Amino acid sequence: MYRTHTCGELRIDHVGQTVTLAGWVQRTRKMGGMSFIDLRDRYGITQLVIDESSSKELNDMASGLGREYVIQAIGVVEERHSKNAKIPTGDIEIKLTEINMLNEAQTPPFTIEDESDGGEELRAKYRYIDLRRNPLKKALSLRHKMAHETRNYLDSKDFMEIETPYLIKSTPEGARDFVVPSRMNPGEFYALPQSPQQYKQLLMVAGYDRYFQIVRCFRDEDLRADRQPEFTQIDCEMSFVEREDVLNTFEGLAKHLFKNVLGMEFKEQFPRMSYADAMGFYGSDKPDIRFGMKINDLTGVAKGHNFSVFDDAPYIGGIVVEGIASYTRKQIDELTEWVKRPQVGAKGLVYIRISEEGIKSSVDKFFTHDDLKKIADGMGAGVGDMIFIMSGIKTKTQVALGTLRIEMGNRLGLRDPKVFAPLWVCDFPLLEWDDETNRFYAMHHPFTSPKPEDLDKFYSNRKEDLELVSANAYDFVLNGTEVGGGSIRIHNSNIQKRMFEVLGMTDEEAQYKFGFLMNAFKFGAPPHGGIAFGFDRFCSLFGGQDTIRDYIAFPKNNTGRDMMADAPSRIDEMQMNELFLKSVAPEKTK
Amino acid sequence: MYRTHTCGELRIDHVGQTVTLAGWVQRTRKMGGMSFIDLRDRYGITQLVIDESSSKELNDMASGLGREYVIQAIGVVEERHSKNAKIPTGDIEIKLTEINMLNEAQTPPFTIEDESDGGEELRAKYRYIDLRRNPLKKALSLRHKMAHETRNYLDSKDFMEIETPYLIKSTPEGARDFVVPSRMNPGEFYALPQSPQQYKQLLMVAGYDRYFQIVRCFRDEDLRADRQPEFTQIDCEMSFVEREDVLNTFEGLAKHLFKNVLGMEFKEQFPRMSYADAMGFYGSDKPDIRFGMKINDLTGVAKGHNFSVFDDAPYIGGIVVEGIASYTRKQIDELTEWVKRPQVGAKGLVYIRISEEGIKSSVDKFFTHDDLKKIADGMGAGVGDMIFIMSGIKTKTQVALGTLRIEMGNRLGLRDPKVFAPLWVCDFPLLEWDDETNRFYAMHHPFTSPKPEDLDKFYSNRKEDLELVSANAYDFVLNGTEVGGGSIRIHNSNIQKRMFEVLGMTDEEAQYKFGFLMNAFKFGAPPHGGIAFGFDRFCSLFGGQDTIRDYIAFPKNNTGRDMMADAPSRIDEMQMNELFLKSVAPEKTK
Repeated sequence: MYRTHTCGELRIDHVGQTVTLAGWVQRTRKMGGMSFIDLRDRYGITQLVIDESSSKELNDMASGLGREYVIQAIGVVEERHSKNAKIPTGDIEIKLTEINMLNEAQTPPFTIEDESDGGEELRAKYRYIDLRRNPLKKALSLRHKMAHETRNYLDSKDFMEIETPYLIKSTPEGARDFVVPSRMNPGEFYALPQSPQQYKQLLMVAGYDRYFQIVRCFRDEDLRADRQPEFTQIDCEMSFVEREDVLNTFEGLAKHLFKNVLGMEFKEQFPRMSYADAMGFYGSDKPDIRFGMKINDLTGVAKGHNFSVFDDAPYIGGIVVEGIASYTRKQIDELTEWVKRPQVGAKGLVYIRISEEGIKSSVDKFFTHDDLKKIADGMGAGVGDMIFIMSGIKTKTQVALGTLRIEMGNRLGLRDPKVFAPLWVCDFPLLEWDDETNRFYAMHHPFTSPKPEDLDKFYSNRKEDLELVSANAYDFVLNGTEVGGGSIRIHNSNIQKRMFEVLGMTDEEAQYKFGFLMNAFKFGAPPHGGIAFGFDRFCSLFGGQDTIRDYIAFPKNNTGRDMMADAPSRIDEMQMNELFLKSVAPEKTK
Repeated sequence: MYRTHTCGELRIDHVGQTVTLAGWVQRTRKMGGMSFIDLRDRYGITQLVIDESSSKELNDMASGLGREYVIQAIGVVEERHSKNAKIPTGDIEIKLTEINMLNEAQTPPFTIEDESDGGEELRAKYRYIDLRRNPLKKALSLRHKMAHETRNYLDSKDFMEIETPYLIKSTPEGARDFVVPSRMNPGEFYALPQSPQQYKQLLMVAGYDRYFQIVRCFRDEDLRADRQPEFTQIDCEMSFVEREDVLNTFEGLAKHLFKNVLGMEFKEQFPRMSYADAMGFYGSDKPDIRFGMKINDLTGVAKGHNFSVFDDAPYIGGIVVEGIASYTRKQIDELTEWVKRPQVGAKGLVYIRISEEGIKSSVDKFFTHDDLKKIADGMGAGVGDMIFIMSGIKTKTQVALGTLRIEMGNRLGLRDPKVFAPLWVCDFPLLEWDDETNRFYAMHHPFTSPKPEDLDKFYSNRKEDLELVSANAYDFVLNGTEVGGGSIRIHNSNIQKRMFEVLGMTDEEAQYKFGFLMNAFKFGAPPHGGIAFGFDRFCSLFGGQDTIRDYIAFPKNNTGRDMMADAPSRIDEMQMNELFLKSVAPEKTK
């Protein structure tokens, strides 16, 4: 061992001991005849000192040290004259007797501080240096803890972690698979799993009762901001359960993590909300309930005032934003432009301002003071508040109002990342109709069970009936982000068959794509259900961050490139031949 | 929840309670007016009873149950008349009041017993049914426990589990990579990692100090028996360590697993052996030291007796097999044929039998009784023992003797799978010369450090010097199987450069293949080293089994096929086009 202690370990009790430390030179400075070196490792920073009385050799050695040099330092622990209360080792310093150079270092391309001076691209290229910064060390440390506590909890609940294969069969349902050519089976490909969905269901058929896995998943999608081609899931499945059992078990997991990772106790049951309420009150299937500002349905009360925009609209809704009656006309105009951007897509924004001076609105022409007062009272708005109203097609308008609600939450500081508001959203529609392809798609995936009470509608051939079928599905939402999703699965092969039929798959197609799962169900499948959590996102929320990239040691950029390793890359012609493949890619022009 | 208890839970204390169980029908039988059902789940088997007094409905229901039907059963716990001491629930049975059918089942294609009547292929195709058998449940349960305890130990030693990417850069060194075409980067490919070697070294450069990961690795090799294209590693790395630190830390892991998984305490330090001794005494770099039967070098003592086979041989060695002096001539002939097979490759086998009747050998013509007695005494052989001798090129002969030694160990029952003999093998050669390609290969991998005392030889340009350089490498061997291997790495960029040079790589090649790692080393790399354990094999050894396939939930066969899912398979032409790929595979003829 190159050290007796770490750089985060020494305290006042160690004074007088001779110790050996090893680490990186964070900074050096001279003061009078003294040299100070801050030595850093994963565990902390310790101050090293060389004074006039030290040998010339030692002084020369210290003078030659650059940032990020790796050294071994031997000396005696002494109490500091001027203590540093900001770091745990701040009471002591090491009076050096020896320095051994372990490795020199080129000057790093950016500073290794909490706020680095390096740009995003540069830091991506030198990820191994960026990873030395505190925020990233904290992020990966939190991630380790999250994973470990997840395993502790699930192990204590009799879940078995079972590894499922990464080289699986391609199933062209849902997102695009990454594929892997097989050399031993020419012309054939494996796929990388988008999730172990089918395997975990097979494990239930096999009687494993409670399965989990913290597992990598792969999706070859055009990457939106903050999406990664490979991501990690906490993947779980249970047998002989109903919805309540699943929700309780994984609410238990979330509470365990809040307690053991963040030290926060959640004693009450997490709130549960139907999809319909989530859309109706929050304009989102993943409401942020850290703050109120619920959407009010004004369709009844706002019609009939000769304002054609309202009168012609199938739906009118509004939100009360507290305490912003002082917003200027300019601010309101800016907000109106904001909601009219294509990302929100509203046609306009009606406001009602309730101030000491009275009630003022952009539709004063059509609404009397009493009309407006009635609306404001109905919404619970009082002096100092502002009401924003939109109208149009119901769902679209709700979503736009929901987007405005989140924006106002941001502007008013109502979305504190240290406050956590978990929520279950339930009773999603089973199917989504797509006009373009003229067919239904599974809102979750084709193994999600319809609610038992909707089975009649599920077997109906009328589109209107099928649209009303609810899924026995649920999402775990944290602070406005969908962190987990799952369902009670179909365990009956007839219902599964019907599902494929509804999705427009022929028997042969279904057999080709999911045959082994459908066959498995014939040999005694138990009732079962499960859930999967997006682990990268779960970690970033626990860390109070928006971006998942800091919570992944070696992430890829928006075009799926690893900037550090410069992957993907061309491969040898010989290997292409072995795989019986020919590239017909256009020549790279850049 | 479909149950109040599991099928492994009920005891005599529960008598009188009304319970609900759910599971699979293992078997049914009728005795007089009584019906018995054995209900099975992951946790055990419970006997259900229906007697004459029960309703006709219930009796009819019971009569209709087939093997592997999934049912919910409600009844009262009663004490059994004839108890079954073989199962933990054997004291009780459930007198049924209600059965609910959860799912019917087709008759499974083979029996679900410890010894199934199904052939290997059939069981592979219906893996989800095979997984219901006890030996597989136990195997996967052991694996879960091994992984969980590995994590507990390493977490307690400040190791952080850090996930490294699965879509990485192809590095055509060592085994063949599986590759993944990138749609977003036409003509380019990711590789699946053969191990996270470079990433874990980067994490050391990044200051993470102690890293581990239980991680999938991929190798596109022609599969030998019991090899899998994807396999799992316990992958570890530590900074500021020397060899002793790594060995002690992971000896601690092994002891923790022996204790917490198998209940076995290992108090002594594991034995350590040099590669030279392993080859010299056991004819293997992974000796099984559960039994002695060491190889004796007889080159000195066996020459000079006018037996040209010995006199012309550069090396003569032998083993003493205790207690088989009674072997017949026929048995010895059979053994001689066995060692002459190409898999062993010996030219012949000389024996010396020491029995009550005296000493007898196949070389009596050349050796006097006293000569033979002297050899026998020198080897510690006594009455009742047999000596086997081979001669030829040194290493080849040692390996053949080692193979015979293992065979004799098997035949004599000296290799009890419930006995564990761990061992560290150290001081491997750094480089292996390959005559065919006329170059050196790294015996471990190109990041393995030479031993500091051999640095002069390492910088020499003479092949003879380079062949003598020892690596700072070590293997963890258990019962004759290499379970783990690792080394102290090169952290100095000059030594790394020299290594690539010795391996015949140009600067450009090295830069192209490993550039980002070599660059990283310039920014302050700490001394570091690590190890990786083959987790599938580790589990199978702990389970006392030779084959790893039972310890993998969904393994592939010898041609890399998943027989259950029928993967790999052809993919859509559209997807090929999106990937800018054309298949030039020959049409399948079968």
